[in-house]
Amino acid sequence: MDTAPQPAPPATREACVAADAADPLRRFRDDFLLPDGVIYLDGNSLGARPRTSPGVAARVIEQEWGTGLIRSWNTAGWFELPGRLGDKLATLIGAGPGEVVVTDTTSLNLFKSLAAALRIQQAQDPARKVIVTERDNFPTDIYMAEGIADFLGRGYTVRLIDEGQPLEAALGGDVAVVALSHVNYRTGAMWDMASTTSLVHDAGALVVWDLAHAAGAVPVDLRAAGADFAVGCTYKYLNGGPGSPAFIWVNARHQDRFWQPLSGWWGHARPFAMEDSYEPVAGIGRFLCGTQPVVSMALVECGLDVSLAADMGAVREKSLALTDLFISLVQARRGSHPLELVTPLDRARRGSHVSYAHPDGYAIMQALISRGVIGDYREPQVLRFGVTPLYLGYADVWDAVDALFDILDNRLWDAPQFRERLQVT
Amino acid sequence: MDTAPQPAPPATREACVAADAADPLRRFRDDFLLPDGVIYLDGNSLGARPRTSPGVAARVIEQEWGTGLIRSWNTAGWFELPGRLGDKLATLIGAGPGEVVVTDTTSLNLFKSLAAALRIQQAQDPARKVIVTERDNFPTDIYMAEGIADFLGRGYTVRLIDEGQPLEAALGGDVAVVALSHVNYRTGAMWDMASTTSLVHDAGALVVWDLAHAAGAVPVDLRAAGADFAVGCTYKYLNGGPGSPAFIWVNARHQDRFWQPLSGWWGHARPFAMEDSYEPVAGIGRFLCGTQPVVSMALVECGLDVSLAADMGAVREKSLALTDLFISLVQARRGSHPLELVTPLDRARRGSHVSYAHPDGYAIMQALISRGVIGDYREPQVLRFGVTPLYLGYADVWDAVDALFDILDNRLWDAPQFRERLQVT
Repeated sequence: MDTAPQPAPPATREACVAADAADPLRRFRDDFLLPDGVIYLDGNSLGARPRTSPGVAARVIEQEWGTGLIRSWNTAGWFELPGRLGDKLATLIGAGPGEVVVTDTTSLNLFKSLAAALRIQQAQDPARKVIVTERDNFPTDIYMAEGIADFLGRGYTVRLIDEGQPLEAALGGDVAVVALSHVNYRTGAMWDMASTTSLVHDAGALVVWDLAHAAGAVPVDLRAAGADFAVGCTYKYLNGGPGSPAFIWVNARHQDRFWQPLSGWWGHARPFAMEDSYEPVAGIGRFLCGTQPVVSMALVECGLDVSLAADMGAVREKSLALTDLFISLVQARRGSHPLELVTPLDRARRGSHVSYAHPDGYAIMQALISRGVIGDYREPQVLRFGVTPLYLGYADVWDAVDALFDILDNRLWDAPQFRERLQVT
Repeated sequence: MDTAPQPAPPATREACVAADAADPLRRFRDDFLLPDGVIYLDGNSLGARPRTSPGVAARVIEQEWGTGLIRSWNTAGWFELPGRLGDKLATLIGAGPGEVVVTDTTSLNLFKSLAAALRIQQAQDPARKVIVTERDNFPTDIYMAEGIADFLGRGYTVRLIDEGQPLEAALGGDVAVVALSHVNYRTGAMWDMASTTSLVHDAGALVVWDLAHAAGAVPVDLRAAGADFAVGCTYKYLNGGPGSPAFIWVNARHQDRFWQPLSGWWGHARPFAMEDSYEPVAGIGRFLCGTQPVVSMALVECGLDVSLAADMGAVREKSLALTDLFISLVQARRGSHPLELVTPLDRARRGSHVSYAHPDGYAIMQALISRGVIGDYREPQVLRFGVTPLYLGYADVWDAVDALFDILDNRLWDAPQFRERLQVT
């Protein structure tokens, strides 16, 4: 669908309003609660709050914890949450039932996946000791790979692909595993998952896909791609709440043979037998480790249920229409501003956010946020605008770009309160 | 104080009611919400719900997430939660400000501590490759040690101390680190932290204390003991809510030199500079890894604030008085029942729960729970009764023991619905 000729984006605000009125996803906006006066373009950092979440929190805290107490581990299904939510999430990423658990953090799940992949390679081709990832990847992906390599020693290393370098150049007989972000957190560039997975496999390596900026935002089909492992985040496009637990998937072909060193009691075959030696449970459960934060975990379901009610094809179509619109509006008004699109124009290579580099990106974003247009800033120089089709419309994009150019054209960003760096510690 | 002659426990229910009326901690019961008709003796598995928790959850979900959105990472202090809550918790375990963070799970924090300890030893005495722990320890502690040793290979192993075996017998020139639970989850037996730490240090090893069944329950003074690392749980005696994040402490002497392989972006010196190589922040922050579950984390403060308002000396005194009472009442009515105390009678060696072995322990506990006396069962055969001085009174203990003997004397546990094992998967 991405290569078909596209209709031109709406050219006026009135046309945007009309597009919103005709939008088949418009009704999902009512499933979220957003503050008045805000255009929220940062759902790829922290998704908006589903309308149902306070009720779920009250149920878990007052009834399940307060009244059920310890009994709720069984009677309220707390033990089953990682797998039950995993099964729901699975349908959004082309995974099957019993293949996904919601647990821990993306960083930790990446560690588990990399460790599992290294162990598989150790058994079948022990000379493979290199973890390949991108220099441009979200830093924690690099740091976790470094942590593993450093801990293992014995020649394990991390190899970074530089920007512009083809993946092929980094592959070789020494590569054990390749960890890639399906959609890049900064640029919004998207890998073709199927062909890239094949490329990695042809080189004898395994692949771990980080779906943090993909799950719930773009169609993902892990099984069709034949991928090995995947991890991702529930608090971005899946609207699980601040810091809600992450997820992890492993291809069924590895499920009963993989091993990972974060071998806590939740991954044991018989956790309540209190045995004095670890024996991993069959299947995805061996990626579990310790007791999970039940309240934050339960909130994941609110966002998942909204995503499951929407058609992912329609979500993707609207996402591309909105990013097309954003790009065309900026192009029309860009003039001599040093605003450079860093997101691919090619729809097949574009995720669900649009990023521009500008030498004064930080101050410009602060000025935008001060007037309720909330995107975010990523080093270096990048203004990042997340597009969330479930609660964002065409007129929102129009108004956001209008605010951006009011700020640019009138140099409104050039003020001390916008230049002061708060977040960078 | 534990060796002084103790007053005899109340000998009648009326005396228990009088002791409750005179109890200086009685007022804290109103800080928790417990269901009617329940005597809760499982606060060492999941603590009761503080009265303030629904309000805090509503604030975080509706205001901070719903209205503040991504801005709340700064404006609502979400980034600071692990350290801010850690500072509060520090005062309950004899740690200083900036020495504790609340994060991840106890299992994961144990992994980080063990990895850090092994790395320190690798630098100063590389022949030390043994992790010592107890066969009787909570299983996840053993499993995480196994996971590390297995992952590292190169001769790293786990050595288990058998029950009855002195710790000294397991120590030697090959031991890198000793991981002990301050209070045993099953028996309630407590190590003398100061003398045990000295013993381990004299043998050239480092010590990790697991405070899961100790923090908030018994006085802990990590700095006075000169311990190296400690981890623990906030959802037991600290009443943080189901699966609330755990904590980790490291002695200031190791803070800037330790390293751990779960090196995610939250532990980086400049997390938002998006650098392509890991550099740990100075201090305890390098034990952080990925984004934390904010709602579950925020609820930790409700329970901590209650514990901080109580005098820990008074909590310990009442805890011992209640376990004394429990033991004396059982002793008086025990008769020919095969009920065997597995908790030390010596007050100095007793934590805050009382455990009895009985061949039909599982069914007896189910029968007790069915009438609202909620303790728990731990393999093998162990009936475990947690004593939480902040919300449990003398008459509660009286009534619980009375229910126990009604069930025992009349064999009420001997029914199919109590014998069926639900929890053991």
